[in-house]
Amino acid sequence: MKPHACAVGVDIGGTKIAVGVVAADGRVLAERTLPTDSRAGVLDGLTRIAAAVREVMHEAKKTNANVAGLGIGCAGPVDPVRGVIDNPHTLPGWPRAPIVAALTHELGVPVWLENDADAAALGECYYGAGRGLDPVVMLTFGTGVGGAVITRGEIFRGVGGEHPEIGHMPISFAGAPCYCGRSGCLESIVSGTAIAEAGKAIGLINAAAVFAAAAAGNAEAAAILSHVRRALDAAIWTVLHAYCPARIILGGGLVEAQEAFFTTAARTARVNAHLVAHTAVEIVPARLGARAGLVGAAGWALQRSQAHGRPAAHAPHPPQPLP
Amino acid sequence: MKPHACAVGVDIGGTKIAVGVVAADGRVLAERTLPTDSRAGVLDGLTRIAAAVREVMHEAKKTNANVAGLGIGCAGPVDPVRGVIDNPHTLPGWPRAPIVAALTHELGVPVWLENDADAAALGECYYGAGRGLDPVVMLTFGTGVGGAVITRGEIFRGVGGEHPEIGHMPISFAGAPCYCGRSGCLESIVSGTAIAEAGKAIGLINAAAVFAAAAAGNAEAAAILSHVRRALDAAIWTVLHAYCPARIILGGGLVEAQEAFFTTAARTARVNAHLVAHTAVEIVPARLGARAGLVGAAGWALQRSQAHGRPAAHAPHPPQPLP
Repeated sequence: MKPHACAVGVDIGGTKIAVGVVAADGRVLAERTLPTDSRAGVLDGLTRIAAAVREVMHEAKKTNANVAGLGIGCAGPVDPVRGVIDNPHTLPGWPRAPIVAALTHELGVPVWLENDADAAALGECYYGAGRGLDPVVMLTFGTGVGGAVITRGEIFRGVGGEHPEIGHMPISFAGAPCYCGRSGCLESIVSGTAIAEAGKAIGLINAAAVFAAAAAGNAEAAAILSHVRRALDAAIWTVLHAYCPARIILGGGLVEAQEAFFTTAARTARVNAHLVAHTAVEIVPARLGARAGLVGAAGWALQRSQAHGRPAAHAPHPPQPLP
Repeated sequence: MKPHACAVGVDIGGTKIAVGVVAADGRVLAERTLPTDSRAGVLDGLTRIAAAVREVMHEAKKTNANVAGLGIGCAGPVDPVRGVIDNPHTLPGWPRAPIVAALTHELGVPVWLENDADAAALGECYYGAGRGLDPVVMLTFGTGVGGAVITRGEIFRGVGGEHPEIGHMPISFAGAPCYCGRSGCLESIVSGTAIAEAGKAIGLINAAAVFAAAAAGNAEAAAILSHVRRALDAAIWTVLHAYCPARIILGGGLVEAQEAFFTTAARTARVNAHLVAHTAVEIVPARLGARAGLVGAAGWALQRSQAHGRPAAHAPHPPQPLP
């Protein structure tokens, strides 16, 4: 195996952290999972992540000379430009954590930080449901609704390296207020949280119970899902017209649990969208499950180390007709 | 002046064609306007465009050796990959017109073809309201609603080089059916055509009459504009969350006529969008007016000739972690 034919991936979620050595073909050569426990503080977290990285590298028989570096996918908000995590929502106790500088110094390898939704989408593009396609949009339906856009092999970035928040597109003028600042956004209708809330109003305990009741003929549950289906249809129409993707990947726990419902509902939007190349678009479930973020973050480190030799500054590239 | 410090821009609309020699700083050195008259056929059109190109080059004292090439912005659908115009809606008589191959052969310079909305957005990014910013989204409100996204100095492209159709994002579950295949899309509410249609139902003759009546206290006209304002607000929210642009540029005849209405309505969406870097986003009117497409197409030819030496194939770039 050539040097730098592998990298270390780190996937940081609110509950647990996965660390693994990933080969260029996507195989996970060694892996550890640890509790996130961010309330114990940044130093505690960094120390445990660094130890886990050393363990998996040792187990996979890799030294710093063999790995392209460390790719981190982390529950946002993250700042990929400055390499800082700042997520009070699901990572309390790690305010403005300078994880890239700290781990670069501690481990002596280049480190890249990205949003976990982007890392998962890259994973699916490198090794899963988006392989060889461009552009690719991934929507993740779980507790919330996440999204990522991969174009020309790169993460689509907004101003300041910012991450799109496709889950908060407006769907309906009516609807419950969302923490995003608007009522009736996609997440406020189609997330697991939103379906569970709607279910509670008719005496059902969670989102799974809503799907089960609808399947059993409960008209109120069916009405909830009809609204969810209509919202999903509108969201897919927007994605088709905003990005003209070659593929839309649907991932997340809710899609894993209700794959037929989601793929069927999403595909109906495509049928009439004749202004865009709708027949060229495929809408498919994710393939890599929970490992997408880990292998995507590692693949991104491989790609970046090759493109630049060192971490990219993510400098914006305003258009210039001449130098 | 260095060689290739200028290029020829061509802006093809349904009614007229503008042809001009454009310097690298955006100055138009010589310009001609001709009727489109596409019903007279492709050969007739190509012959007149080639003659106009020769005229403006002669007037600007440029030879083939001095120009980077020809950039064409054309009312879509166009196929930038194959260099073919195929727009039965506003360019009847030019079915599958291979304009790039024909003009390359006829004029002996490289030729690039793009959608006119993309050309106008590039023009604003090179020389107007989007200068030095990344990414930039331009929305054009006129007879219809057009859109373009410029990211990292490039036109955002979908599968097959496809152009986003932001004007057809769903806004409302209710609403008039649009030719896009869906009811209640942005264009079906906020375009000049849609406002005029709504005005006719209350006895007003066109969109300008609706704005005038609302200003004069007509409650029905005010209700139409209130709906337009709400739709624009939702559309801007989607643009903010889908692209996180550094700048949103509002262009087109309707915005020129009602600039305060459009900028005020669009800016209200920004206020609460705290999940994205809303304070970093500016929403501004276009600066170049009808010339944006001409100078943008020429600037694109300059940029492309420098990047590749020859026309880009617009090959997709699926992500690859390793070669």
